[in-house]
Amino acid sequence: MSIKTSLTQRLGIDLPLIQGPMNGVSTIDLAVAVCEAEGLGSLAAAILSPAAMREQIAQLRSRTTRPFAVNLFVLGAPQVDEAQVLRAREWLAPFWRELGVAEELPSQWGQDFPAQFEVLVEAAPPVASFTFGILSAEQIERLHARGTFVIGTATTLAEGRAWVEVGADAVCAQATEAGGHRGTFLVPFDDALIGGFALYRQMAAALAVPVIAAGGIMDGQGIAAALTLGAQAAQLGTAFIACPESSAPPAWKHAVMHASADSTRLTRAYSGRPARGIVNPFMQAMQAHEAELPPYPVQNALTSPLRRAAAKAERADLLALFAGQNAPLARALPAAELVGVLGRETAAVLRAGAALLG
Amino acid sequence: MSIKTSLTQRLGIDLPLIQGPMNGVSTIDLAVAVCEAEGLGSLAAAILSPAAMREQIAQLRSRTTRPFAVNLFVLGAPQVDEAQVLRAREWLAPFWRELGVAEELPSQWGQDFPAQFEVLVEAAPPVASFTFGILSAEQIERLHARGTFVIGTATTLAEGRAWVEVGADAVCAQATEAGGHRGTFLVPFDDALIGGFALYRQMAAALAVPVIAAGGIMDGQGIAAALTLGAQAAQLGTAFIACPESSAPPAWKHAVMHASADSTRLTRAYSGRPARGIVNPFMQAMQAHEAELPPYPVQNALTSPLRRAAAKAERADLLALFAGQNAPLARALPAAELVGVLGRETAAVLRAGAALLG
Repeated sequence: MSIKTSLTQRLGIDLPLIQGPMNGVSTIDLAVAVCEAEGLGSLAAAILSPAAMREQIAQLRSRTTRPFAVNLFVLGAPQVDEAQVLRAREWLAPFWRELGVAEELPSQWGQDFPAQFEVLVEAAPPVASFTFGILSAEQIERLHARGTFVIGTATTLAEGRAWVEVGADAVCAQATEAGGHRGTFLVPFDDALIGGFALYRQMAAALAVPVIAAGGIMDGQGIAAALTLGAQAAQLGTAFIACPESSAPPAWKHAVMHASADSTRLTRAYSGRPARGIVNPFMQAMQAHEAELPPYPVQNALTSPLRRAAAKAERADLLALFAGQNAPLARALPAAELVGVLGRETAAVLRAGAALLG
Repeated sequence: MSIKTSLTQRLGIDLPLIQGPMNGVSTIDLAVAVCEAEGLGSLAAAILSPAAMREQIAQLRSRTTRPFAVNLFVLGAPQVDEAQVLRAREWLAPFWRELGVAEELPSQWGQDFPAQFEVLVEAAPPVASFTFGILSAEQIERLHARGTFVIGTATTLAEGRAWVEVGADAVCAQATEAGGHRGTFLVPFDDALIGGFALYRQMAAALAVPVIAAGGIMDGQGIAAALTLGAQAAQLGTAFIACPESSAPPAWKHAVMHASADSTRLTRAYSGRPARGIVNPFMQAMQAHEAELPPYPVQNALTSPLRRAAAKAERADLLALFAGQNAPLARALPAAELVGVLGRETAAVLRAGAALLG
């Protein structure tokens, strides 16, 4: 079975379905399973060192002959304000005490994006996707020269237009429904919480490149609706969190399977950058400090060891439970099976739509 | 042409399309045009006195034999705090001065909902829709006894379930994309800003009654996408603001036609209840006082004369420019023509979806 759009034909995939890159969820097994099932698997490379990136891309390539994507965060050098860091450490101290382990400090604030980008150009994956910021036309030309298809993430129509202007081949439209970090880069985060019915439709109507719908899509009905609005593919993240191939801790998987549509909220508590996750005690306790937390990646580096310790202790109250507003529709199926189900559902829904005409 | 769902068959309409009730936009002409074009027209009766309601329902009935809806806000008695009112009047004073007219005080705080409800039961319109709160099972039984089909507005799945429990015949799912007042009644407003891809899909999957999708739907692609997610009809409000039959002041129509997806925001500035509108200087100036403004309908009563004066003076900076996130896709067509276009677009999109299958 196949569902054809101009984007699937250009990418050489049979289903208009991209597995969203997610730090803490994404594994090579997950990406391979999606690729082999005819979707586009993604590697979340943003938190990998250049060496680890090179190694993982090589591994992925050795396990599938099908196209795949590698995702990076477009970031400048970390902005470290020592006083802000000290305050954040004080706010985090009670959680270390609660876990009964000594505070562990990060070994580095974040990855070096220019070095990651060099590895990406050299590795030349079939597809590279970007979020948090925007590339220059020169950077995109370097990827194009290596045959890499470039996807930029946008949360407003203006951001989508900016990506088209620098030469992106497709735009991933991240709606307010989406779980995890917001990709907003041109306006305040609060001004870019646009629902999929508005964002996907406006981007598809206005942009000269294919649009990928990301946010609130969990099943064939969602994929078919995104195509109906004019998107050329759907990117599903939360739908894959509960898969056995996902590296999310069991407590995160459990929270996703038991969420409701109003149980998520945007928070800076975990990383310093607004991200959608299921509300838990850590998020609530940090809410009062939201405005004063260090920016990404500094807060992310400060909480990473804490979250690792919390995962080991199976403490869902201290984990980052990133998830989208449609989390309740998650299914804990093996990824290949899930992709098969999604493809069949999408086809059935598209067929049923035509049957409404009297 | 017709597009059949279980709801269109139950209501006796040919298109799965409801014109959203909007105070300041809704006219009898608009409702009649939509009804005669095979959609479901709505009368926004919430701000009408019981006598005016009776009169307008009679007029509407005399002009169409097709089904129509009447909408009310479910409200208790106004909560008037004199100190809060005085403060709000002080904040509004500069705008009166700017308009160069003397402050005009409201003649009443709001309509008497129980009295409006009695008129509704007596008038027995084919359809009655409600927002802001929830009816009792007894109230719904009284409407059912008169043959009226009851639609309740919900912004979370829990609110949808509550409406089903009291006996509503259908639930209108109001997504975050929607323009105008939020219908939230069970949780804080900020916890109920759920995008259509999540809200429509979850309600359609979980509720035992038909779901009407409301928010971000402006064209046939949007209607078809809502049906694809499992909704039985779409309710379009913003799409009708610029129609010649709408009573919106020209400045409001102009703002809708020139909006972008990120030009709307939620505000309590106009009415005391969160509503989505296009950001303008009045909204920005009042932002600092958002938390201290009187609740609906008190703030609404205080700003109503100001907005009437602003409309007369063609001052878009002081008008309530309520609109949804998909406002940029508005078309200034006569309502009957717009409904015809919407029907043809929906049919074409449903047909095209099936053609993607390879």
